[in-house]
Amino acid sequence: MFRRIRIVGKGRVGSAIAGRLASRGLTAETDPDLVLICVPDTAIADVARSVAAGPWVAHVSGATPLTALDPHARRFSLHPLQTFVRWRGPEQLDGAYAAVSFDDDDGRTRGWWLAETLGVRPFDLPEDHRPLYHAGAVMASNYLVTLHRAASRALESAGAPAEALIPLMLRTIENHFELTGPIARGDWTTVEAHLKALEADLPDLLPLYRELARVTER
Amino acid sequence: MFRRIRIVGKGRVGSAIAGRLASRGLTAETDPDLVLICVPDTAIADVARSVAAGPWVAHVSGATPLTALDPHARRFSLHPLQTFVRWRGPEQLDGAYAAVSFDDDDGRTRGWWLAETLGVRPFDLPEDHRPLYHAGAVMASNYLVTLHRAASRALESAGAPAEALIPLMLRTIENHFELTGPIARGDWTTVEAHLKALEADLPDLLPLYRELARVTER
Repeated sequence: MFRRIRIVGKGRVGSAIAGRLASRGLTAETDPDLVLICVPDTAIADVARSVAAGPWVAHVSGATPLTALDPHARRFSLHPLQTFVRWRGPEQLDGAYAAVSFDDDDGRTRGWWLAETLGVRPFDLPEDHRPLYHAGAVMASNYLVTLHRAASRALESAGAPAEALIPLMLRTIENHFELTGPIARGDWTTVEAHLKALEADLPDLLPLYRELARVTER
Repeated sequence: MFRRIRIVGKGRVGSAIAGRLASRGLTAETDPDLVLICVPDTAIADVARSVAAGPWVAHVSGATPLTALDPHARRFSLHPLQTFVRWRGPEQLDGAYAAVSFDDDDGRTRGWWLAETLGVRPFDLPEDHRPLYHAGAVMASNYLVTLHRAASRALESAGAPAEALIPLMLRTIENHFELTGPIARGDWTTVEAHLKALEADLPDLLPLYRELARVTER
C-alpha cells in the first residue's frame, strides 16, 4: 500500500506514530506516497495547502473535517482514540481504537491499512458525526482528569489521601461501570449532605456536582 | 483484639467483609465482641439502638456520623473506599484504602486493627470532614459511571463503538491524569464544535459538558 510516509508534526501523537512507522521501515522525508499531518488542529489546513500535489494526504485529528485537507482529493483521516504523553513511545498505540473517515472506498482501504500497520483497531466514522464523536472522547478522557481533580480536592480538603481514589476508579471501570452509592440507593439525604459540605468548603465545585447528580439520576 | 465479630447486613459490602472475616475465623452470630453494622446508611441508627450494650459497635458507611451508633460509646467506623458488586467476593477489599473515624485512641487502634485484618489500607478521617470526603468518593466512582455513560451515548450517536472508550479511560488513569486535548491546547474552536454537536443530537448533556469545560479551564 504505502511505502514512503512523511510525517509532519512531531508532537505527542506524531512522535508515537513516527516511531511505529519507522520501526516498520515506512518513513521517508522525500518523495512520499503519503503525507501524514500530525500538527495541532488549527494548523492542519495551512500545512495541507503547502503539500505539493501527488501523494495521498491524511490527518490524525478527531474533530477536524476532511475538507481541511483541501485541495487534495486523495485523502482520509485516522484518529487514534487515545491520550498520548511525551514520556512514552509508540507502544501507546497498542490496544487503542482509531476512527477512520474517508470520501470513498479507496480512502477507506488506505485508512484501514494505516490503522492495522500502526497496531490500532480501526472503525469507520461518518464525516458529519465527527464533532459528536470527539465530544464523547473529550468527556471520557479530558473530563476524567477534571473529575479526578475535583474528587482529589474534596479528599485533600477532608484530610484524606487522594491516592486512595485510584483503586476506586480502576475498579469502577473493571466492574463495567456498575452504579453503586447514594444515588443508586435513592439516598438523597446523603446527596444533600455532600452539597452542604461542598458549599462550605469547595463552593466552586457545587454546580458541577449538581449537574452530575442530575444526569446520574436520569 | 476482636475474636467474635457479628456482621449485620449482608449486602454488597457486608458480604465481602463477612467472607474475609470468616476466612480469618473471626465471625460469630452470638456473644460478639464487635457488632459491625453493614446496612444502608438510613438504617444504621435503628440497628445500633437494637444492639444490646456490651460489645464494640462500628459501621462501614462513608458519610454517616459516629453519633448514628448511639447509645454505644465504644465505637468507630471503617469505610472501605471501594465500589462493591455482588458478583465478586472478599478479594474486592484487596488494595482498597479505608477511612477510619473514631472518638478516642482506643477506637482508632481497633479501627486500624480491623482494616489490617480485612486487608485494606487505613487512614484517619476526622469526623466532621466525612461528608466532604464522601462527596469526593462519589465523584470519583459514581460520577465516573455517569461520565462514561455520557461519553458512550455521544460515541453511539456518532456511529462509533463505545467499547473504544475503555483503553482511553484506563490510559488516562495510567498516565497520572495528564490533561491533553482541546482545552489543554487552548483550542476553543473545537470546544464550540462539541457544544454545537451536543445541542443538535444530545441536548440533555449540554449543561454537563459546559460545566466540565468550565471547571477544566480553571
